[in-house]
Amino acid sequence: MELEFLRWLGERLPADVRAPLGLRDDAAILELSGQRVVTTVDMLTEGVDFLLSQDDPERIGRKALAVNLSDLAAMAARPLAALVALTLPREGALSLAKRLYEGLAPLAEEFGVALAGGDTNTWDGPLAISVTLFGEVTERGPLLRSGARPGDVLLVTGQLGGSRLGHQFDFTPRVREALWLAEHAELHAGIDLSDGLSLDLWRVCQASGVGAMVDTSRIPVADDAARWAAQLADGSTALEHALADGEDFELLLAMPREAAAELVKEQPLACGLSIIGECVAGEGAGKSRLWRREADGSRSPLVPRGYEH
Amino acid sequence: MELEFLRWLGERLPADVRAPLGLRDDAAILELSGQRVVTTVDMLTEGVDFLLSQDDPERIGRKALAVNLSDLAAMAARPLAALVALTLPREGALSLAKRLYEGLAPLAEEFGVALAGGDTNTWDGPLAISVTLFGEVTERGPLLRSGARPGDVLLVTGQLGGSRLGHQFDFTPRVREALWLAEHAELHAGIDLSDGLSLDLWRVCQASGVGAMVDTSRIPVADDAARWAAQLADGSTALEHALADGEDFELLLAMPREAAAELVKEQPLACGLSIIGECVAGEGAGKSRLWRREADGSRSPLVPRGYEH
Repeated sequence: MELEFLRWLGERLPADVRAPLGLRDDAAILELSGQRVVTTVDMLTEGVDFLLSQDDPERIGRKALAVNLSDLAAMAARPLAALVALTLPREGALSLAKRLYEGLAPLAEEFGVALAGGDTNTWDGPLAISVTLFGEVTERGPLLRSGARPGDVLLVTGQLGGSRLGHQFDFTPRVREALWLAEHAELHAGIDLSDGLSLDLWRVCQASGVGAMVDTSRIPVADDAARWAAQLADGSTALEHALADGEDFELLLAMPREAAAELVKEQPLACGLSIIGECVAGEGAGKSRLWRREADGSRSPLVPRGYEH
Repeated sequence: MELEFLRWLGERLPADVRAPLGLRDDAAILELSGQRVVTTVDMLTEGVDFLLSQDDPERIGRKALAVNLSDLAAMAARPLAALVALTLPREGALSLAKRLYEGLAPLAEEFGVALAGGDTNTWDGPLAISVTLFGEVTERGPLLRSGARPGDVLLVTGQLGGSRLGHQFDFTPRVREALWLAEHAELHAGIDLSDGLSLDLWRVCQASGVGAMVDTSRIPVADDAARWAAQLADGSTALEHALADGEDFELLLAMPREAAAELVKEQPLACGLSIIGECVAGEGAGKSRLWRREADGSRSPLVPRGYEH
């Protein structure tokens, strides 16, 4: 539904020099008073992003900021300040607000985010948290979805899949990793893996007008992906979960082959870096066709799957 | 509840040079990359700010932006760009999103606001809209709540009370008026009247460490305040509604007496300007005691009443 709405909106919104990216990336870049500010908003809601009946409010509060930090990481931007808007169920609102904050504040401190303001309301509905995060672009400029080129290799940080078993709350947004990589390597495109590797890869390919070939055997599959598959016992595989679960909040990057090979050899980041495939020339109307290649060399189309808003 | 939460939060938040106002005004001022950006967020929700069963989505979308424009007007800041986060009931989400936008977009265009991004979700809950608005401070600097001095007179724009009869949706945020006044007059303090004249006046007095004397006979009472009192038939008066209804989204300003007298004589704004009283020396612990003075000169305490979040 979000995709269809954005398409409809994209045809109506006038182009504006103050928001040169339009609605096309993880965060917006605003030209404010001659200064480029990166900003992003995410609204987390009961039943979609958490369940108050089973998730501690501290973890929910932490997640509300962490997902926005992940969006800034995707742009290789430095976080600066946040606004927090809460809409709380009336019953126990104050105690809930305090517990959300107790989870959010330490993460804000860790990433140097000033909590600058917000809005706090109560209503006869479930909990909704909207965090707006501001950051600044480094000298390297913002990392966009649209810069991938045929021949680039695809890199991911960390391990993927099975985030429902806890990672969806406890992940570390890859802000430091993104800033380090942007400073030390030539990055062509990036996105954070919020909705599923194959779906988010498709978005990068769409924005860049390229296709992609994914080596399934090289995808770093998290142990939790296998555990989650076993728990579901629905015939799904750990690899399928790594390709489509989402909420990994790792980085997917496109960059030149040699620099990527060197990075993977050196492994400068504690979370790990893996090459999972490469960008290929676009084909067909959308130009963003995805392919998968198995360990035996056989190829087949990769269908983008993941969480659709 | 919001007030108690902000008090609790204020004791915990570390002071931060990047957000010098703390949580004390209508909008936050961020020091981003050496540039001052004014930003504010408001979350509007079903049952609190609108009723989807009786209010057109176009009016709701318009209001979601308008209340934020009013917050920037309160700071005498120039609007620049907005992010819109929607959480929509699943049933009919796309059609609702489009209608909200159809109401919001013309107001954005009228006030030169670039719609730069957002977040769109669906859930099994009611409609919630969170708009984050960015603006820039003019050369005059931001207008704050905290600058009122004893001897200043209190001015309001427009008419007050009875906003429930339609004004709560159809008001024009006083952005142009605030910018004009900030350029042509010496303003000491300002706030937008979102929660009720007496309550918002009390906030200005608290922030400034002054008291206030309100001449009840000089308050510009809207015709709708009398209509609303008649409709309620609960013994309330039009004046009481002007003092406490809220959602007037007019400006309350504190400024030097002579400049105010000249403005009221000249009436440069189509919405009208009225002197409604004056700031007096603070008294007692809170220093922000409010008084009312009737047409016959009799005085009594004015109890701050309005909408408490």
